[in-house]
Amino acid sequence: MSGQPENPSPVALVMGTGDAIGAAIARRFAGAGYIVCMARRNGDKLSPLVAQMREQGWLAHIFSCDARKEEQVQSLFATIEETLGALEVVVFNIGANVPMGILETSSRKFFKIWEMACFAGFLTGREASRYMARRGRGTIIFTGATASVKGSAGFAAFASAKHGLRALAQSMARELGPRNIHVAHVVIDAAVETDWIRQNHPDYEKLAARDGIVQPDDLAENYLMLHRQPRNAWTFELDCRPWVEKW
Amino acid sequence: MSGQPENPSPVALVMGTGDAIGAAIARRFAGAGYIVCMARRNGDKLSPLVAQMREQGWLAHIFSCDARKEEQVQSLFATIEETLGALEVVVFNIGANVPMGILETSSRKFFKIWEMACFAGFLTGREASRYMARRGRGTIIFTGATASVKGSAGFAAFASAKHGLRALAQSMARELGPRNIHVAHVVIDAAVETDWIRQNHPDYEKLAARDGIVQPDDLAENYLMLHRQPRNAWTFELDCRPWVEKW
Amino acid sequence: MSGQPENPSPVALVMGTGDAIGAAIARRFAGAGYIVCMARRNGDKLSPLVAQMREQGWLAHIFSCDARKEEQVQSLFATIEETLGALEVVVFNIGANVPMGILETSSRKFFKIWEMACFAGFLTGREASRYMARRGRGTIIFTGATASVKGSAGFAAFASAKHGLRALAQSMARELGPRNIHVAHVVIDAAVETDWIRQNHPDYEKLAARDGIVQPDDLAENYLMLHRQPRNAWTFELDCRPWVEKW
Amino acid sequence: MSGQPENPSPVALVMGTGDAIGAAIARRFAGAGYIVCMARRNGDKLSPLVAQMREQGWLAHIFSCDARKEEQVQSLFATIEETLGALEVVVFNIGANVPMGILETSSRKFFKIWEMACFAGFLTGREASRYMARRGRGTIIFTGATASVKGSAGFAAFASAKHGLRALAQSMARELGPRNIHVAHVVIDAAVETDWIRQNHPDYEKLAARDGIVQPDDLAENYLMLHRQPRNAWTFELDCRPWVEKW
Repeated sequence: MSGQPENPSPVALVMGTGDAIGAAIARRFAGAGYIVCMARRNGDKLSPLVAQMREQGWLAHIFSCDARKEEQVQSLFATIEETLGALEVVVFNIGANVPMGILETSSRKFFKIWEMACFAGFLTGREASRYMARRGRGTIIFTGATASVKGSAGFAAFASAKHGLRALAQSMARELGPRNIHVAHVVIDAAVETDWIRQNHPDYEKLAARDGIVQPDDLAENYLMLHRQPRNAWTFELDCRPWVEKW
Repeated sequence: MSGQPENPSPVALVMGTGDAIGAAIARRFAGAGYIVCMARRNGDKLSPLVAQMREQGWLAHIFSCDARKEEQVQSLFATIEETLGALEVVVFNIGANVPMGILETSSRKFFKIWEMACFAGFLTGREASRYMARRGRGTIIFTGATASVKGSAGFAAFASAKHGLRALAQSMARELGPRNIHVAHVVIDAAVETDWIRQNHPDYEKLAARDGIVQPDDLAENYLMLHRQPRNAWTFELDCRPWVEKW
Repeated sequence: MSGQPENPSPVALVMGTGDAIGAAIARRFAGAGYIVCMARRNGDKLSPLVAQMREQGWLAHIFSCDARKEEQVQSLFATIEETLGALEVVVFNIGANVPMGILETSSRKFFKIWEMACFAGFLTGREASRYMARRGRGTIIFTGATASVKGSAGFAAFASAKHGLRALAQSMARELGPRNIHVAHVVIDAAVETDWIRQNHPDYEKLAARDGIVQPDDLAENYLMLHRQPRNAWTFELDCRPWVEKW
Repeated sequence: MSGQPENPSPVALVMGTGDAIGAAIARRFAGAGYIVCMARRNGDKLSPLVAQMREQGWLAHIFSCDARKEEQVQSLFATIEETLGALEVVVFNIGANVPMGILETSSRKFFKIWEMACFAGFLTGREASRYMARRGRGTIIFTGATASVKGSAGFAAFASAKHGLRALAQSMARELGPRNIHVAHVVIDAAVETDWIRQNHPDYEKLAARDGIVQPDDLAENYLMLHRQPRNAWTFELDCRPWVEKW
């Protein structure tokens, strides 16, 4: 009945496991029995995470991959498919925001932000599509942000890239849905509990104390839920924010 | 950690259990241990459903309530709260579409469609808010449709009512979120498996054979999922459609 | 080449000429050579305005009409069509906002706000459609607000009604466009210069001094522009706000 | 009263005058008294257009500029500002669509489409902002398309780039509005009369015969209208489509 008849040891890839969200998604799928591949530019940094996961008996692997480089992305997919098995789930979770005024936005920064947040998403999504289209099944999930649906002052570069990623996801969902590939987009409309937020958010303590900061583990639940949806009722997009968030 | 510390026998109300969706939502919450109250204009029609549910050992009750009548809605809430316990979840699931050209839309029909799909939603949502705001917790979920986000030719009355319901839900979510009440809106963007669809959809057989019709039970899963989301990561809106749906 | 080949003395109706916006729209069309009909519940209140307009040699008429009453709306249209000529332009410009929390929103208020801002718009728009569809030409413009596209805390009733009006307009635009009737929706996303705003807006003086309050006459220009658009390039929706407005 | 107190011989730049739309916008501003600068990669191709415009007594200049190259864009702005005067209006009008499936989208094509439709828009918009912010006035208009607001199957690359451009425009509008710079976005939601459409649109003859193809001259009117809006009522976005268009 499900749209996702899976192989016995399904494989999931989290592209961009550098932050708390990527790690939480990886843990969630590993805990659900997936062979989880975690990729970031410098894979070695994931050694503590992968060790911790394996201690729990989970199947986890780390890879170094610059997601902006086509040959690296293609090589990563080829390696995983050959050595670990068919990718059932691919999550794209890259793209940090750097607010800056339009007048101060250098062309280099505009390009870099797009390359990270949008172009790398295209490379990842298209490569996933190729393997999944051949098999006629799979799930591809993109992580979005407030800037995916709203262009605010000081966010020209980031909003441009994130809108671009969302449009890519929407086009892919419409094109690949009928090929039994579930493409989804999660809009995180708030601060997420990360090292950076803990150190830089002015109201961190106060907010965190009252569940006002998104917890990566709770967020990750949505990714697994999306993947498990039967194909008669697929969700393309959902938003997530704490109860106290202004929006 | 969750935003919904619940009483031992939590109560859920499904306003509009006349169709397959409402019944499925009721069954899903009953199966999860909720005392489920099912209301429709003529509650007697729910006797077979409630009997079937009770056979499974589930706690289910039926009520007759014209959701367009304020005193009936208020009386329903009062009765449930007094006799069964605190309402933790209220689902509003009323509003059938009747396509018609704008020139043929009588003022009576325009009013009736709004009264059913929007005004009854207001009465239900506001009454739920009153009880939940006092306790500082609860979940209110509204069922939406394609017409909630798009005004199409032949849908002036229905789209007007459904847009109105969605705006109500969004305003309530923004206002009541910080009071620990989770308000959500589910956009069903496709035909759902109902008697009516089985008999009237031109491609029913073909679509149903390939998971092209939304299954109420699978849809209902989203309602329970929304209610269970911890409050650091609440979803306001998600869409649902079959993999083969054009959108 | 234009989609609107007009009669020699075209007639325009502004439903809701009670405020500064309606009056400005009326003046703008009168100045452009239209026979302008201005309607509000108590038409007598428009005597000073109509006198002032006639002094300029403009053709203007006032009518008393409760736009929420079908028979009054129908009678108004019949009278205008019989005595003054074919309606080329109909503007619906009713609907004042009264912010209030959801818990304090009585069912009577929810209904009244909808009746004014949405139901009256349906009666006006459908009646206009009937005359215009017969002739195969015409323009119908609805006045929208921020609440037409966003449901904010404290605006449940107003946002519900204004979303409903916008969905009506959008459905009508899609249905009636191919019948050569131009339906449009103007989203005013800011405070407009009215008596009420002058007396109640906390920053009125400061804002007004720097063009921070929408001027009805400048706003009205858009209504005439929309009506004059050739039919190969019709606009359904545009937004208007002052340069300094946060949005 | 207007937000745009202009110099005696205001200058307008149309970046991307390669197609019918850019040429029409250039003609419209020239006819309204602007010194019009027309830029495209190979400026020589504009010789016939500039000759024709000058015959009418209009002030027009052509420039060769690859809008994807920062130094060329900067040099173009510097040259115009030094030799012709202050730029009051800058229109960005580049970005052709090439539909293709996601599996067939090479990384080179994805990049090229973004570079043309979005990155060049950033370079143009930011450079315009720099000159205009110094003077505290100006208008920047971006040309959008259906793909700016909807990601359809077969349009992943184009929709991604156009969504990115729209988000850039929206962010700039929010940031630069309070600096008296009017940023706007025109969504063209239909086929426009161009050589390409005349030769490739399957229903061109039939559609054109009934005003079903957007006429560049009529479209251009909106750009001048947007520029002339007084700053108490600026429009960020409007859509344009023929009366018969399905949307």
